[in-house]
Amino acid sequence: MRDVFHHELDQLAHRLQSMTGLVGTAMGSATHALLNADLRLAESVIAGDAQVDDAQRDLDERAVQILARQSPVATDLRVVVAALRMSSSLERMGDLARHIAALARLRYPHHAVPDGLAPVFEQMGEIAERVALKAGQVIATRDLDLAAQLEHDDDELDALHRQVFLTVCSPEWTQPGETTADVTLASRYFERFGDHAISLARRVNFLVTGDYGPGEATAGPELAPSGLPG
Amino acid sequence: MRDVFHHELDQLAHRLQSMTGLVGTAMGSATHALLNADLRLAESVIAGDAQVDDAQRDLDERAVQILARQSPVATDLRVVVAALRMSSSLERMGDLARHIAALARLRYPHHAVPDGLAPVFEQMGEIAERVALKAGQVIATRDLDLAAQLEHDDDELDALHRQVFLTVCSPEWTQPGETTADVTLASRYFERFGDHAISLARRVNFLVTGDYGPGEATAGPELAPSGLPG
Repeated sequence: MRDVFHHELDQLAHRLQSMTGLVGTAMGSATHALLNADLRLAESVIAGDAQVDDAQRDLDERAVQILARQSPVATDLRVVVAALRMSSSLERMGDLARHIAALARLRYPHHAVPDGLAPVFEQMGEIAERVALKAGQVIATRDLDLAAQLEHDDDELDALHRQVFLTVCSPEWTQPGETTADVTLASRYFERFGDHAISLARRVNFLVTGDYGPGEATAGPELAPSGLPG
Repeated sequence: MRDVFHHELDQLAHRLQSMTGLVGTAMGSATHALLNADLRLAESVIAGDAQVDDAQRDLDERAVQILARQSPVATDLRVVVAALRMSSSLERMGDLARHIAALARLRYPHHAVPDGLAPVFEQMGEIAERVALKAGQVIATRDLDLAAQLEHDDDELDALHRQVFLTVCSPEWTQPGETTADVTLASRYFERFGDHAISLARRVNFLVTGDYGPGEATAGPELAPSGLPG
């Protein structure tokens, strides 16, 4: 029975990792759609989010079944509860990728992001995709060095988010309100995506060490960037 | 043992309800701070969020203890898992109130919201406070009529969010980028707050009826407003 049980736990981790792949790819595609006003790609990201939602429901159902049938205690119990929380984070990451794609669709055939900010968003998209992949590796390998790297990647994402915010708040910014609203929301979505990836890594860190690692020992994905109201 | 167990479940519900009170009051105060550029009130909301975080950690720990000691199955198990999810939503609601307060603090002594939009945000704050309170009542009473009312309240919140978005996107909007970014983010925070309140009510609905109620049967708090990329 213990073998079956640990096989089931491994499967949960495997499913979580596969969800990181889904949301990382979705965010990469959403960024591409955003920066290239690619309507078809945007539509495919939006439609594809249902796959992430299905994966979450399936994973959660399995986790509840494990709780019901195996009645795990101690660390094993915490692993299952952590899996439930991680699947929520991943579901949100899928939503955030979809929101980016929805912005691209909303402004099509125009570009939601003005040329001047395109390189910043391109970088945000790259980092977002990378943190999702790394979070998947952290889940699969429990490699805490990689988890620490993720914190660094997320700092970069936060810095870019701050840069967007400061850009639209500067007196030199002359774009219309629509563009300001679009880039403010898009930047926020990338930043939240990074926060969720970090929370995945921190949960693994907690399971391995009993500690959430650097930063605040929060149970939630909230990591307020300094000087910014989000 | 079953009596002890059900007493523990009642306590979880009681704690969840008390968290709805905390976040509802926080959102009311945050709105007041935002609209009146009240720095001290903003600071108190920001500092007070730690109480919500503590309440979540405490509740989650109790829920995990219940799983470990009682090994609940069937509906009882789902109640405990739902409590874990609800505490996450409530923790986020506290964060969102804090973000509103942080906006007020960031712009002090100026007002983050221009006069023209103040009535809209006042309404959003009232509705947000109301939905938090109602969600608490739904948790305490399992009153599904009240849960249905909550959906209606949230529709109002979504409509106001759309109104803000359309206002800043209109050609008549002449405010600087800073103001546009502020009101876009603030409006998004209120909208997300409402989404989380709805997700609380839907979880109760699910426990009572096996169905998430009106709207999509999502396991997450994601309820995309039509025509808006968030």
